[in-house]
This record gives sequence, C-alpha cells and structure tokens, in this order.
Amino acid sequence: MTLYDLDLSGNCYKVRLFAALAGIDLSLVAVDFMAGEHKQEPVIGLNPLGQLPVLVDGDVVLRDSQAILVYLAHKHGASQWWPEGAAEQGDVMQWLSNSANEIQNGPNAARLVEKFGIPLDKERTLQVSGVILPFMEQHLATNDWLSLGRPTIADCSIFPYLAVAWEGGIDLAEYPNISAWMDRVKALPSFIPMPGM
Amino acid sequence: MTLYDLDLSGNCYKVRLFAALAGIDLSLVAVDFMAGEHKQEPVIGLNPLGQLPVLVDGDVVLRDSQAILVYLAHKHGASQWWPEGAAEQGDVMQWLSNSANEIQNGPNAARLVEKFGIPLDKERTLQVSGVILPFMEQHLATNDWLSLGRPTIADCSIFPYLAVAWEGGIDLAEYPNISAWMDRVKALPSFIPMPGM
Repeated sequence: MTLYDLDLSGNCYKVRLFAALAGIDLSLVAVDFMAGEHKQEPVIGLNPLGQLPVLVDGDVVLRDSQAILVYLAHKHGASQWWPEGAAEQGDVMQWLSNSANEIQNGPNAARLVEKFGIPLDKERTLQVSGVILPFMEQHLATNDWLSLGRPTIADCSIFPYLAVAWEGGIDLAEYPNISAWMDRVKALPSFIPMPGM
Repeated sequence: MTLYDLDLSGNCYKVRLFAALAGIDLSLVAVDFMAGEHKQEPVIGLNPLGQLPVLVDGDVVLRDSQAILVYLAHKHGASQWWPEGAAEQGDVMQWLSNSANEIQNGPNAARLVEKFGIPLDKERTLQVSGVILPFMEQHLATNDWLSLGRPTIADCSIFPYLAVAWEGGIDLAEYPNISAWMDRVKALPSFIPMPGM
C-alpha cells in the first residue's frame, strides 16, 4: 500500500496520522512539490487533479484524504474509527465535509497564503475560520471528541490544519476547548506529529 | 423525517433529489432564508452553523448535505447508491469531498455572487471551476457515471450546482461529456428538477 506523500501537507498528514494510530503500514513515496512532481507521472496519471495525497493499494487508486481515511478504516475493520451504522456514519461524515470545505478554505488556505505565498484572499480565509472555529469551540464544550464520543477519522481529518493554524496567523489560544481537544488527540497512543506543529 | 429546506439551495436540492430517486418520503419545512429564519430557532439550535439543509429523524439530527445523503441511503438499505465495501465507499467519497469543496467553492460560489450578490471573489470561483470541470470532463469521457459505473449519491451530490451553473455565468456547453452525464441524471426514473434548471 503506497501513499504518494508530501510531508508539509496537512492532507497527507491526515493519512499518516490515522495509519499510525490504527497500526496500518504505509509505504511512503515523497513527492517533490516544489519541483512540480505532482504534475508529472506517475502522480498526474493517478490523480489528474494533481493533488496529494494519492493512495495506491493494488487495483485501488484513491485521491482525496477523506476518501482515503474512509477506505483505510473500513478495509482494516477499524469500525471504532469509521462506524458501520447509518446515523454514526452520517455524524462522522458531517465533519469530513467540514474538513473538505471550511477547514480547507479557512485555516489551510490561510497557511497557504502566509507560509507558501499562494495568492488567495486572506480575509476570506479568516472569515471562513471565524465560522467553523467558534462552532467547533461550542461543540467541544460538551464533547471530548468531534463525533460519537470517541476518536474517529473525523478527528484525524480536522486536526492537522488546526495543529499548524499558527502558520497561517490563526491563534487558537482564544479557543480553549479546541486546544484541549488537540491535546487529547496528541495524547492518543501511537500519535505522530507533523512538521511545524 | 423532516428536512429543513430552501428551494433555491442546491445543497437542499441534493437531498430532495436523492429522496425522490430512492423513493424516500421527506416532510419538507421551508425556511425563509431572506427573513433570516436559518439564524433563528429551531434551525440555529439544530445547526449552529446556520446552514441548510438540516435533517431531523427522531433523535438523529444531521447538518451537511453529503452527510444526509450517506445517512438516508444507508438507513434505507440503498446500497446501490451508497455502497458497503471499502474501495467502493472510498471511490464515492472522493466525489463527496469534491462536492463539499470544489463544487461548493467553484460553481456554487459563482452563483452566490451572480444570483444573490454575495461578495465572494468571482475570479477565484472561476479558477476553482476551471480545475474541477475539466477533471470531470476527462473522467466522464470513459465513464457514464461519476463512481462505480452506476448512479450513486456522488451524482446526486455533484449534479445540483452544475445544473444551475449558468446562473453563475459558467457555460457548460464547452464540456460535452458533463452535459451528456447531466442528461443521464435527468433521465433517471423519478427525477425531479430544481428551480432555475
């Protein structure tokens, strides 16, 4: 099972983090983003969007970090991380969508501006962050974890770009419940960090 | 089963469309967005993000259209729409993430600017559209459906904002494979349209 990987990408780190927590072996292939390797073969043939990560497992080729989390958890029977029931899957799924949209276009995009100089609308990234972070803060006032009262792939999906939000100029000190939740994630057995945390 | 609904919202239409196709009964509660009812009780208590749709089914309360699609398909045993296997779920999930991110921030956001006067970065909405639409066009050159060779919730999730993309100034005439796929969606038994299509 091969993960085409970029160490500074929170989307790639989502997968590395979950694999570590769930005890799943991955072969990492480092993709040199600065050299444009994500727009060359083999990556561009595996994912014409040119985005990382990409997972290859025999005949299965998956782009998108959320999809890879669902696949890995399901394949390895890790139903504590990706549940089997309808209501439970729906509950986790809400956070996977927040990760794909609000976290991507909020804290992640703010970091792309500040750390990598990508010309996105910084004010908009802060607006989006200013919606999702208070929502999370409220939710985590009465919940230790994002979904189902236990660690799930929802936490693995949301955590990475919050852990490096400071690189985008976003200070999580004003969100004590989020900060406490991040400490709980970091305390999980077999947790691994990401560069910049 | 109650759906808090806005007829002009593609995210709400995703759910209405899937329910129609799968033969699931929904009680619709129209929310007057212009009057700010999404920021008042009961909606804001059900979804503090103030977004529509929201589904209430007994004790189950779900925000996010993708999460609602997963829940409804799973609950009703509609595994042709939301599959049970790991690789198959991962494949559909890729498109649900594209729907939450690229379709939301591309065609949907362009429509928010043009139709509703919401001050987003129009150029950015076209950039995002200019990535996801050629990708879909390429994929649909050799696939009749987005995932698994059959209609799934991936199609229900992506279709709505493309069906009204013209309202955001995006012309799909240059994407014949996307246009043909949209015709296949429209030809599905029990298909229902959305205002503006």
